[in-house]
Amino acid sequence: MQENIGFIGLGNMGEPIAANLIAAGHSLKVYNRTASKAEPLKAKGATIVATAAEVATPGGIVFTMLADDRALDQVCTAEASFVETLGHGGVHVSLSTIAPATAKHLAEHHRKHGVDYVGSPVFGRPEAAAAKRLWICDSGPAAARERVRPLLAAIGQRTYEFGDDPAAAHVVKLCGNFMIAAALEALAETFALAEKNGVDPAAVSQMMGETLFACPIYQIYSKLIVDGQFEDAKFRLALGLKDMSLVAQTAAASNMPMPLVSLVRDRLLASTAKGRADWDWTALALDVAENSGLRKAAAR
Amino acid sequence: MQENIGFIGLGNMGEPIAANLIAAGHSLKVYNRTASKAEPLKAKGATIVATAAEVATPGGIVFTMLADDRALDQVCTAEASFVETLGHGGVHVSLSTIAPATAKHLAEHHRKHGVDYVGSPVFGRPEAAAAKRLWICDSGPAAARERVRPLLAAIGQRTYEFGDDPAAAHVVKLCGNFMIAAALEALAETFALAEKNGVDPAAVSQMMGETLFACPIYQIYSKLIVDGQFEDAKFRLALGLKDMSLVAQTAAASNMPMPLVSLVRDRLLASTAKGRADWDWTALALDVAENSGLRKAAAR
Amino acid sequence: MQENIGFIGLGNMGEPIAANLIAAGHSLKVYNRTASKAEPLKAKGATIVATAAEVATPGGIVFTMLADDRALDQVCTAEASFVETLGHGGVHVSLSTIAPATAKHLAEHHRKHGVDYVGSPVFGRPEAAAAKRLWICDSGPAAARERVRPLLAAIGQRTYEFGDDPAAAHVVKLCGNFMIAAALEALAETFALAEKNGVDPAAVSQMMGETLFACPIYQIYSKLIVDGQFEDAKFRLALGLKDMSLVAQTAAASNMPMPLVSLVRDRLLASTAKGRADWDWTALALDVAENSGLRKAAAR
Amino acid sequence: MQENIGFIGLGNMGEPIAANLIAAGHSLKVYNRTASKAEPLKAKGATIVATAAEVATPGGIVFTMLADDRALDQVCTAEASFVETLGHGGVHVSLSTIAPATAKHLAEHHRKHGVDYVGSPVFGRPEAAAAKRLWICDSGPAAARERVRPLLAAIGQRTYEFGDDPAAAHVVKLCGNFMIAAALEALAETFALAEKNGVDPAAVSQMMGETLFACPIYQIYSKLIVDGQFEDAKFRLALGLKDMSLVAQTAAASNMPMPLVSLVRDRLLASTAKGRADWDWTALALDVAENSGLRKAAAR
Repeated sequence: MQENIGFIGLGNMGEPIAANLIAAGHSLKVYNRTASKAEPLKAKGATIVATAAEVATPGGIVFTMLADDRALDQVCTAEASFVETLGHGGVHVSLSTIAPATAKHLAEHHRKHGVDYVGSPVFGRPEAAAAKRLWICDSGPAAARERVRPLLAAIGQRTYEFGDDPAAAHVVKLCGNFMIAAALEALAETFALAEKNGVDPAAVSQMMGETLFACPIYQIYSKLIVDGQFEDAKFRLALGLKDMSLVAQTAAASNMPMPLVSLVRDRLLASTAKGRADWDWTALALDVAENSGLRKAAAR
Repeated sequence: MQENIGFIGLGNMGEPIAANLIAAGHSLKVYNRTASKAEPLKAKGATIVATAAEVATPGGIVFTMLADDRALDQVCTAEASFVETLGHGGVHVSLSTIAPATAKHLAEHHRKHGVDYVGSPVFGRPEAAAAKRLWICDSGPAAARERVRPLLAAIGQRTYEFGDDPAAAHVVKLCGNFMIAAALEALAETFALAEKNGVDPAAVSQMMGETLFACPIYQIYSKLIVDGQFEDAKFRLALGLKDMSLVAQTAAASNMPMPLVSLVRDRLLASTAKGRADWDWTALALDVAENSGLRKAAAR
Repeated sequence: MQENIGFIGLGNMGEPIAANLIAAGHSLKVYNRTASKAEPLKAKGATIVATAAEVATPGGIVFTMLADDRALDQVCTAEASFVETLGHGGVHVSLSTIAPATAKHLAEHHRKHGVDYVGSPVFGRPEAAAAKRLWICDSGPAAARERVRPLLAAIGQRTYEFGDDPAAAHVVKLCGNFMIAAALEALAETFALAEKNGVDPAAVSQMMGETLFACPIYQIYSKLIVDGQFEDAKFRLALGLKDMSLVAQTAAASNMPMPLVSLVRDRLLASTAKGRADWDWTALALDVAENSGLRKAAAR
Repeated sequence: MQENIGFIGLGNMGEPIAANLIAAGHSLKVYNRTASKAEPLKAKGATIVATAAEVATPGGIVFTMLADDRALDQVCTAEASFVETLGHGGVHVSLSTIAPATAKHLAEHHRKHGVDYVGSPVFGRPEAAAAKRLWICDSGPAAARERVRPLLAAIGQRTYEFGDDPAAAHVVKLCGNFMIAAALEALAETFALAEKNGVDPAAVSQMMGETLFACPIYQIYSKLIVDGQFEDAKFRLALGLKDMSLVAQTAAASNMPMPLVSLVRDRLLASTAKGRADWDWTALALDVAENSGLRKAAAR
């Protein structure tokens, strides 16, 4: 079924996702704060609108892919927002990595306008988004999830469902990002131990990536850490810190300690203190190396 | 080429490994402190000898698979040990998980007797050992490694070589075990966060095991933690603690901090304090759950 | 000089502080959300008013002692707040433990109304407040600090000045509370180590309190931990957690890691998970004891 | 009563302690591996002997103040050691900071020779030793403790008794050193937080040292950290690391986690990795500052 879809947020991830929705035959109205980023989509058939509110069609669907909780909250709760335009029967598909508490709060807000909130955060880098190879977790009202299922199928390789609670999928997304960050810390310490003992980290990386840890996260990130091109940011350290802060905040709101989150977050804070917020988040390995005496702290 | 092989240490791992060497056509003399454990191998053609020293043939090869550094050190440096019997041209293939410092020390000791020390620790559980599916890392004098290569091929699915330093392979083994322990902590915290937020840990486990973390360690251990049969020890928590203590000791000897090792080791110490040394090491997840208020500390 | 003083927030700390201002000869208008708490002050000569805004006299002084950042922010930025009434020449003496960022934000807000914000958080328990034995740190515009100096002298034993930045005194207060929490953790681990090794914690406490650590914090808190009357809350664990969260938040806003804050905060979160939010914050020692196998986790 | 006293180990601490025993009227035979260090004591009346064993008189008393567990163990368990010479009725007063497990093991060894082991570790720097202002904790057989009481009174300002277990006093000494190290970490993080927020650490140090933390440890160490003369080693960082490793080892042997010990030990390991083993142990504050972006890692 053809859907009238609105799309807000056309960054590295949003743009290829929107393109795939167009390619799947849907009609898209798109909005981005920096308008020039919307141009490539215009060529593919999207309609560019002047305000976030205008992307919505009554009873339609709006996707959002925004930088953080605050940006999403503002666009949703502004006066005359897209939520009001969507109105009864509308669905908001929320792709961003945000706090479950924000999702819960927005879902309540939307309900007053007759709009269903579906949390649908995604795993994958921009290349994966372009190739429709994202992994998606989603949760929210069952009927709304059923309606958006074909749309999610058009942008990812598989969707995992986590029930009716709109916040659930966001919890899962934070779990996944935490697991990645934990793996980064483990790899960084491992490689430092190897290097201090005269063993080539690349050789350790190869063995582990072919055997016990033969999975994308370990293979990709091992290589990035061993190669050490940390200034080339594929995923900015500042974003990793933001995500780990969301995890820490969610754990605190749940009244539970997560000491490994604390450790990783402190590592990212040290990296930020040393001036690496805009580097790739694998640069946390540099901090490990410096604390091991393997490298002098450089200019930044 | 047929080799005269001695084998010391016929526990859960040693016994199936020795059986595979026999199956590959080699002549084996075997020794175990508790003699009854050697019986099954006798039926397969092994010769049972009365002392550790008697397993060796001059210029032959001896495998050891013992509980810890102390046990290995004692059997190697006792008076009239197997090392003296091996003598010039002999090779000691050391399969145990031990400190690199112990390997270095033993290699020096062996050299005085003309014996080459090859560090060959293995990854895999008893079932993998029986199925010749172990992953092996080895290091030591090149000629000795070449000589034992077909033997290692007879007991594992692949051998990774780490050069001439006899301690190197033991460093790699510690790296691997640390990476596993770090993954356990990450999984335990993840599942607790999910549960505290109303998300089913089994569903999170399934998604991660099929996507970002589609590799044996995550798949196997996620299931063990979610199932929660912690009293059924596949790998005793006390052994995990021993291994993490070896990592901590190696890091300290290398003058470097490994905060994630500290965290995991403290977790295993708390689990030991609570009476779980003989449970499976995934029982560290119980400690995480208790500190999250998800479970009361039980009788043990 | 007699001052017209308003006082908002008459809890355990606010009430005795207000009483001391009356005793020093000042005229007080007081407000508390729960009005009954203001009664004892009425008997001492205070005027009870019906709204927070009414405590203020144009160009006068208002003290606040409220539960947290949010409560203070609301009372300051509400429409027709006491700040507007104070107007040009007024001074707000802010006694609460709050984030430096909140102080900075409020100071800017006040400036628009011609009001000076003086951060004046205090150290000491209710008994110390009653006895005029509080330690006070303050910062803010110099003239305002000079004006309130005699008032602070009427409620504490000494005031330490930290310059013109209104946030500075709040930083110092967080530093002090963190130092106390760190000492609690150190004491709890110390006593557990002693007990596990057959040494009486009370004897260790006595020696340290008479020698290296002969100061109030160590003497008082050692005794509380050794006595183990954790359910009798002198300072609620939930408040300790709130304060450590303010420290963590301030560190993160400053782009720096504070691993000891992380450790203590995680300890307080575990204690909360176990149902001890309303106990005394020294109850963190129970968590240490449980993780050491010294005590089973009790009903709560 | 005059005692025939032997004294082994005349370093920074041992030399002034031995001098005070002479000053109290006792006859001393002294030994130091580097003989020249014994010369000043000769002038004061001590007899210099050529081997450690010769310091002992049958039934007499021998004090030891050696660098570490290994040095003490060697001097005690060597063939024809001073313990054998002491024989029945002799007492060994052991001043060094060592593992309780070592004390226990030595006490058993001594008992076979009829010698009592009294653990008597001391708190205080060389100046305090010279001024007879050490704080002493001791434990061991009651009669032996009674006999050495006047001797300890001659070298310190007060002795705290911890019962019959020879290891107990050593546990207390480790507790004290850990509490100091924990305070160092707390101070270092506190001062970094202050500095990052524009507050002068010296002012924070002054207030805390005059109020909540008005005790020697906080006053002395705050000043050292604020002054930042870390290369001038009053207590070498390597020794602090050794002590924290003893604490960690004792905690592990007691089956309990001490996460704050882990944190401090990792901090000292990072400082060692950065080349500061020979600096004062307050140099751990430099590592805190570097991880906060306050200082670039310098040449060492």
